[in-house]
Amino acid sequence: MQCRGDDPAREDAPVSAASTTALIAVDWGTTALRAYRLTASGDVIETRRSGDGILSVDGAFAAALTRHVEDWTADGAVPVLLSGMIGSRQGWHETPYLTCPCSLQQLADALVPLDHPRLDVRVVPGLADHRDGRDDVMRGEEVQVFGALAEAETGHFLLPGTHSKWVRVRDRRIVEIRTYMTGEIYAACRNHTILGRLMDEGGWCESSFRRGVADGAADGTPGALLGRLFGVRTAGLFDRLAAGELPDYLSGLLIGAELADAAGDGSEPVTIVGDSGLVERYRTAADTLSIACSLGESDASVGAYIAIARMAGLLGQSGSRRGV
Amino acid sequence: MQCRGDDPAREDAPVSAASTTALIAVDWGTTALRAYRLTASGDVIETRRSGDGILSVDGAFAAALTRHVEDWTADGAVPVLLSGMIGSRQGWHETPYLTCPCSLQQLADALVPLDHPRLDVRVVPGLADHRDGRDDVMRGEEVQVFGALAEAETGHFLLPGTHSKWVRVRDRRIVEIRTYMTGEIYAACRNHTILGRLMDEGGWCESSFRRGVADGAADGTPGALLGRLFGVRTAGLFDRLAAGELPDYLSGLLIGAELADAAGDGSEPVTIVGDSGLVERYRTAADTLSIACSLGESDASVGAYIAIARMAGLLGQSGSRRGV
Repeated sequence: MQCRGDDPAREDAPVSAASTTALIAVDWGTTALRAYRLTASGDVIETRRSGDGILSVDGAFAAALTRHVEDWTADGAVPVLLSGMIGSRQGWHETPYLTCPCSLQQLADALVPLDHPRLDVRVVPGLADHRDGRDDVMRGEEVQVFGALAEAETGHFLLPGTHSKWVRVRDRRIVEIRTYMTGEIYAACRNHTILGRLMDEGGWCESSFRRGVADGAADGTPGALLGRLFGVRTAGLFDRLAAGELPDYLSGLLIGAELADAAGDGSEPVTIVGDSGLVERYRTAADTLSIACSLGESDASVGAYIAIARMAGLLGQSGSRRGV
Repeated sequence: MQCRGDDPAREDAPVSAASTTALIAVDWGTTALRAYRLTASGDVIETRRSGDGILSVDGAFAAALTRHVEDWTADGAVPVLLSGMIGSRQGWHETPYLTCPCSLQQLADALVPLDHPRLDVRVVPGLADHRDGRDDVMRGEEVQVFGALAEAETGHFLLPGTHSKWVRVRDRRIVEIRTYMTGEIYAACRNHTILGRLMDEGGWCESSFRRGVADGAADGTPGALLGRLFGVRTAGLFDRLAAGELPDYLSGLLIGAELADAAGDGSEPVTIVGDSGLVERYRTAADTLSIACSLGESDASVGAYIAIARMAGLLGQSGSRRGV
């Protein structure tokens, strides 16, 4: 697999004669997109990343898609699958949420075609969970989860991000979604409250982070977090931590609180899916709290894109190596 | 008692011959100050409020004090007591914290004199609580608490604000301080996260607020709050609440979480001290959660200023009506 920067015209990977492009899949989020050029058996011919998230392209979604992937269709018509916030109200076209529990087949049956002058484009719909009188949603993570699930029947998946998603799978169906605003609250606290004023940029400080994790997980009620946050200020005020250590303490506090709530009694191991710098933070936090976890493959969603395309009849009868 | 706007030159209250000014007390916080002109027996001759908080006067504290209270000293030298963030690192002079447990006498014994060309100025020091390996602090609220305590021996006091303070008193000593960043987190969420983007200004919506209070208090761990916050977004997304109702729901969520954590098992009634619009919100939240509460007198701190001045020997032997 080739990863490269925001330069759709460059091609690093030699395409062999056997590597016919059968599917283009694009994980198109709020601030970035990632495009995969795939063979029918799930081999990745090429990967492209770009900062052209849905908020960056000023509504010109079709043109942006053309720019990033059209050269991949030189050897004929290739279906294009999109997932992520591109299917939201702020994206190209708002697709209705499917409701949990939801299987991969149900996602494949609900693809929404979009108008494009030359490409055959379909969006994978997002999912909603209306359990216990609460509403939760995701767009894009459903593909990553089915990819990370691979051949398994059940799992508990954590997808770190600005909003981290916890997704439970039973009998190969997504049954539960829980979103935590951890990353966005961190940024708001750091940039827009008194806590940030005491902080300096510092290198990664694992001990401060682990201390935060333990403190964030230590208390018994939701409101305790509002008190612990003030503790970031007093830790600075009384020189318990240096200004450069406070950011990681705050990060640990919030991630520790999230983990302790979401992982429950820790009886089910958590699979962390993603490749951002947050993955290592969550792994360290899980270690601090003795929560069993493993890391999912970083490009696992490829298998799910292929499986969805096949279930939707977009790939014909070619063989499957990576399908789930 | 007279209250008036930011106009130190105006005088509304007629001063009788018997009402000799014996003490000037100033609650001088980050964004506002309130000055009291008092007789030795604790009668309020006049009150002045101003937006000249410590962040507004550009370091010219002595001049600001002169401007606001010097005309009250026309009939002779009068001691001036200051309390609040004026004694912080950002204020006129950083005074060391006293440590809990702390009595009113200890506050009186620790007044810190400040240089002023004509006035006899002293600062009431703030308090720190270093219980259970955690640090908490306050400046100014200690006077309000002793004032609200009046003749009682014990109490549990809530002082709403950008940072709300919960203060426990045993045997007429402050033994515990707990700060919650509720108000500041509300502002950060509303103005600097995705939650604010779904909101409209709406009138006060008590039902949305009470629903938020119940939801904020419902969960079992700190991290649950990070999930409940995302629920503000989905409540908008699925039209469970109108855009104009979301601000009060968010406010209720945070205040409910704070109350459920801070009030503990609710066995000790809470006295809410202050006169901001937040007091009514907290009272409504306490009612929603069946937490017993009462409202303290809004100018209760006057009695504590008089008592501190007397204990510090600043008032001579004149009679006490309002002292605590």
